[in-house]
Amino acid sequence: MREKYGVPFIHNYPSISHRCIQKAGAKLKFPFNCHNRTLPFHQMKLFSYLNKAFNGFPSSSKLLLVFSLSGGGLVAYSESQSTSATNNTELERLANKKKVVVLGTGWASASFLKDLDISSYDVRVVSPRNYFAFTPLLPSVTCGTVEARSIVEPIRNIVKKKNGEIQFWEAECTKIDAAKKKVFCRSSIEANLVGKKEFSLDYDYLVIATGAEVNTFNTPGVVEYCHFLKEVEDAQKIRASVIDCFEKAILPELTEEERRINLHFVIVGGGPTGVEFAAELHDFVYEDLVKLYPMVRDLVSITVIQSGDHILNTYDSRISSFAETKFARDGIDVCTGCRVLSVTDKNVNMKIKSTGEYVPVPHGMVVWSTGVTTRPVVKDFMEQIGQESMLLTCMAISALLSGMQGKRRVLATDEWLRVKGYEDVYAIGDCATIDQRKVMEDIAAIFKAADKNNSGTLNVEEFQDMIDDILIRYPQVDLHLQSEHLSSVTDLLKDPEGNARKEIDIEGFKLALSHVDSQLKSLPATAQVAAQQGAYLSRCFNRRELCKTQPEGPRRFQGQGRHEFMPFRYKHFGQFAPLGGEQAAAELPGDWVSVGRSTQWLWYSVYASKQVSWRTRVLVVFDWTRRFIFGRDSSGI
Amino acid sequence: MREKYGVPFIHNYPSISHRCIQKAGAKLKFPFNCHNRTLPFHQMKLFSYLNKAFNGFPSSSKLLLVFSLSGGGLVAYSESQSTSATNNTELERLANKKKVVVLGTGWASASFLKDLDISSYDVRVVSPRNYFAFTPLLPSVTCGTVEARSIVEPIRNIVKKKNGEIQFWEAECTKIDAAKKKVFCRSSIEANLVGKKEFSLDYDYLVIATGAEVNTFNTPGVVEYCHFLKEVEDAQKIRASVIDCFEKAILPELTEEERRINLHFVIVGGGPTGVEFAAELHDFVYEDLVKLYPMVRDLVSITVIQSGDHILNTYDSRISSFAETKFARDGIDVCTGCRVLSVTDKNVNMKIKSTGEYVPVPHGMVVWSTGVTTRPVVKDFMEQIGQESMLLTCMAISALLSGMQGKRRVLATDEWLRVKGYEDVYAIGDCATIDQRKVMEDIAAIFKAADKNNSGTLNVEEFQDMIDDILIRYPQVDLHLQSEHLSSVTDLLKDPEGNARKEIDIEGFKLALSHVDSQLKSLPATAQVAAQQGAYLSRCFNRRELCKTQPEGPRRFQGQGRHEFMPFRYKHFGQFAPLGGEQAAAELPGDWVSVGRSTQWLWYSVYASKQVSWRTRVLVVFDWTRRFIFGRDSSGI
Repeated sequence: MREKYGVPFIHNYPSISHRCIQKAGAKLKFPFNCHNRTLPFHQMKLFSYLNKAFNGFPSSSKLLLVFSLSGGGLVAYSESQSTSATNNTELERLANKKKVVVLGTGWASASFLKDLDISSYDVRVVSPRNYFAFTPLLPSVTCGTVEARSIVEPIRNIVKKKNGEIQFWEAECTKIDAAKKKVFCRSSIEANLVGKKEFSLDYDYLVIATGAEVNTFNTPGVVEYCHFLKEVEDAQKIRASVIDCFEKAILPELTEEERRINLHFVIVGGGPTGVEFAAELHDFVYEDLVKLYPMVRDLVSITVIQSGDHILNTYDSRISSFAETKFARDGIDVCTGCRVLSVTDKNVNMKIKSTGEYVPVPHGMVVWSTGVTTRPVVKDFMEQIGQESMLLTCMAISALLSGMQGKRRVLATDEWLRVKGYEDVYAIGDCATIDQRKVMEDIAAIFKAADKNNSGTLNVEEFQDMIDDILIRYPQVDLHLQSEHLSSVTDLLKDPEGNARKEIDIEGFKLALSHVDSQLKSLPATAQVAAQQGAYLSRCFNRRELCKTQPEGPRRFQGQGRHEFMPFRYKHFGQFAPLGGEQAAAELPGDWVSVGRSTQWLWYSVYASKQVSWRTRVLVVFDWTRRFIFGRDSSGI
Repeated sequence: MREKYGVPFIHNYPSISHRCIQKAGAKLKFPFNCHNRTLPFHQMKLFSYLNKAFNGFPSSSKLLLVFSLSGGGLVAYSESQSTSATNNTELERLANKKKVVVLGTGWASASFLKDLDISSYDVRVVSPRNYFAFTPLLPSVTCGTVEARSIVEPIRNIVKKKNGEIQFWEAECTKIDAAKKKVFCRSSIEANLVGKKEFSLDYDYLVIATGAEVNTFNTPGVVEYCHFLKEVEDAQKIRASVIDCFEKAILPELTEEERRINLHFVIVGGGPTGVEFAAELHDFVYEDLVKLYPMVRDLVSITVIQSGDHILNTYDSRISSFAETKFARDGIDVCTGCRVLSVTDKNVNMKIKSTGEYVPVPHGMVVWSTGVTTRPVVKDFMEQIGQESMLLTCMAISALLSGMQGKRRVLATDEWLRVKGYEDVYAIGDCATIDQRKVMEDIAAIFKAADKNNSGTLNVEEFQDMIDDILIRYPQVDLHLQSEHLSSVTDLLKDPEGNARKEIDIEGFKLALSHVDSQLKSLPATAQVAAQQGAYLSRCFNRRELCKTQPEGPRRFQGQGRHEFMPFRYKHFGQFAPLGGEQAAAELPGDWVSVGRSTQWLWYSVYASKQVSWRTRVLVVFDWTRRFIFGRDSSGI
């Protein structure tokens, strides 16, 4: 620095070891082009030391080689210019690593990166967030039950585990060019940046895991006047805003009505996030804030606006009604069957569906939590690959079939999570949906493959021989059996009167499976789905070479041989709905429903165990303990 | 709500007890006009219950009366319309409470409120921050060694201790009208507020404790491109910005020079805050960040720009040089004797004082920490009461005398912390300075008072009789004795040759004390001074009635009798300078200096013990422990 700025710095003594490493680092030459590829410091230090120690000794090359064999990729550092066969193979292997670009650092991406074997992939991650957030605890952050920092883990801590070989850049992907196998990115840091903000990355495989953004349904005023609850920053803003509402309400020279409006919290959307936030807010107000603002205790009101007939309508109806009863007891107002038409700084304007009446609801603060939609970069990519129009059609069908989720326009993938038409592009998590192949589309091929003796009819043996592959390839068949309470797959072959048949022809086969596809449902946009997809995909990546020669998937009905991998299959482990006051509801596997205080403790233990690191686990448990002892903090920061 | 908005809320059952309290609350009538004065909830509930229980029983009034006697101010709630003498006296006492308005929630204000006996004061606090922040730990917050929330305590928790009788409003004071005894305030909440934002408050006593704001010395670009380190939010912003710099620096397609500039952290100001931040930043970078960003380890640089010849120049020179050596060893560059002329998004433009050379210093981030200046509301008040011009004069004198602090234009108070010329307005903390009365101004009066026999000369006995009052009233005399190493005050009476004199005339007396006033120094703008002033002032408020009849202060030299209170006297308990790497320096009372690792542990224990609540104490200690185990978090939130 001294030379550079010509400034009389009074002290500037970089220690000897730094200089030595710098010098050593300058000698590093990699045979392939790779940004920023330097060795982790502790390794560099060690090699630098060894290098100095053996300087001038011709026999040192052997010693370094021995070291490199145990050290894996570090062989490139050897200064002995060894050209042994081992060395070359190693370098070639490194150079031949496939480039994997991962977009996003959410559940899907983190779960993918966690288990990925990076010995055969050169992994680059791009995301505007340099951390992973444990999103199911976001509602707790809104009221300070848990601190924001307790639920985030720097993505580089995952990178670090892999000896720094996963590279991460804090940037937003602005464009995907699947034809040229390139993504274009721009740094999302707003502060002044010295140098270029934009860069592009080549890939061999692309994993899109950018998640989704809040869906405002283009409702006027939502972006301007509503809080969202999607990112950690949103939760922090809500927290400050709740306190602000109380500070506003107790200002002198306000009428009681004005105080009441300032303390009217409106939540639009009665899904799990909205409901959990309402519950958290209720606890925060009545457990903590009323102690500090006793004068406005009776002026606080919380309203949940839901367009459907019930809150938590994706849950079991027992949970839904338990939640409604609990909210009624707590004094949380629930307006069902109401659609929000616009939001202003003063009112939420809604329409009561049943009467068609328009009602302005004055508010102190609004939280908008009505679902998610595709991010611009993904939308752009969909248009580019012609999925936008295609998807609308298949979504329309899917909407007809499933009666829900019809409006989500997301990237369609096959059952192996590959974006349709692009073998090298994967999409996981909230940005994607699996477009499950329908049985009726393949019915002729299935019949043909099963009819081994080409008799034109299928007998029970032939059918049973094929059924495992059918069940794997078309999970809707299994769902159909369950929903029809059929104990055996051969029951499908019974005639319309219910009598067993020995053989069935193509028309009968079509008829027997005709209702199967109606079981198709899109997977919900949850952390659970995303995490399972990430883990599934990393397993596929890890077994890619193996499965090329030993495919593990089901038989191909359209084509020859077997699929390389088993298709992705979601396993639902249940879901929780914390309802405040140390009460929670849970939908557990096997149609079990559990509600009450013990369920809250189950919630605590599950959420503590699911944390991504010991650091966040300790912090979250400490936060819960702190809340029990000291309550939640109400400082307006 | 149902009636109000005409909405089909499906559940709306406020519990019986709420309604009952609301009804009861409506009957509350206070005989004096007071904003928002309602009873704390638990008390209302109890009374509401009692009220119901005895409804219709005429004898209930007695029962309630008994209760009210033990319950203090609660008597107003009685529905029995009791007009007993006791009751009236109580109400009168309440109505006669003097209104105290306190501006600010910093060290001075919190310390004043903590010990104030509110039984005879009606206290209202106004501040744009609804919390007290333990500011000495702010540098630790910048790097996540301690979390922001761990060093803040809601001011209402202090309010709560006093049974809610201190009212707090989150608002900014915009104008002080000392003539009408009124302050004008405006809510500082930016979110949409239903109702009036402005309000005014009458006072009998006003305590100004608004602190100070960062002094940019009108340097161009500072406000736009520099970080400050004054508020909790500043520290949070710095933390995010440091991470951003690292994320910027590792972006692909940057040259090494660009990376180097992005990682150049510049700190303007080598005072305690700047130095501590530089040390914290160094630890953060080399203990935590280089593990996650190993590729840019050798590109990081930290520079401290100081206009004086040394950093920490208000400390003992041993500490100053220890800090400089430590920084040199750590590779932190210190540029002394440099003045910053302007800051742009790319450069800090400075002038080397010795050579007059202008040097642009490219930076990734700048922290500006060069001292404080008066807030606009205080400046406005000073102009209003004519202190602006007066102060400049006395500051000029003071600057001449003390050779430092000359440029701080702050509210001048007398030794009892009253704003000069206003008996009812007090100013404490960073917004004020004590304008210590000079001995030479009063020399004739002192001589006259001491010369009991009106002989025109002062003998040793007369002098000794008066010396205690002189030492209390003019602490500079004591300082003079210490600096001249005089063991006894009678040494002052010696003649210029050092021979003892029995008597001294007015001219000799003047000569003897002529150098005394040069000892005058303004108190530094530290938490320690503010806290002591707050505690002192609350003691004066608590003893106001008692001291009217039994004054405890020194004799009045100008006038009759004694001063009511002892003048404020600052006691310096020493100061710390944490220098990073578990090393700290400390200036302890009695010219002791301690440096090194043990001092850091002393720092830990002192700072833990000085926390305002058990909550923050536990949190801060937990944060330190967490840092030892898991390191600092580098998530960009």
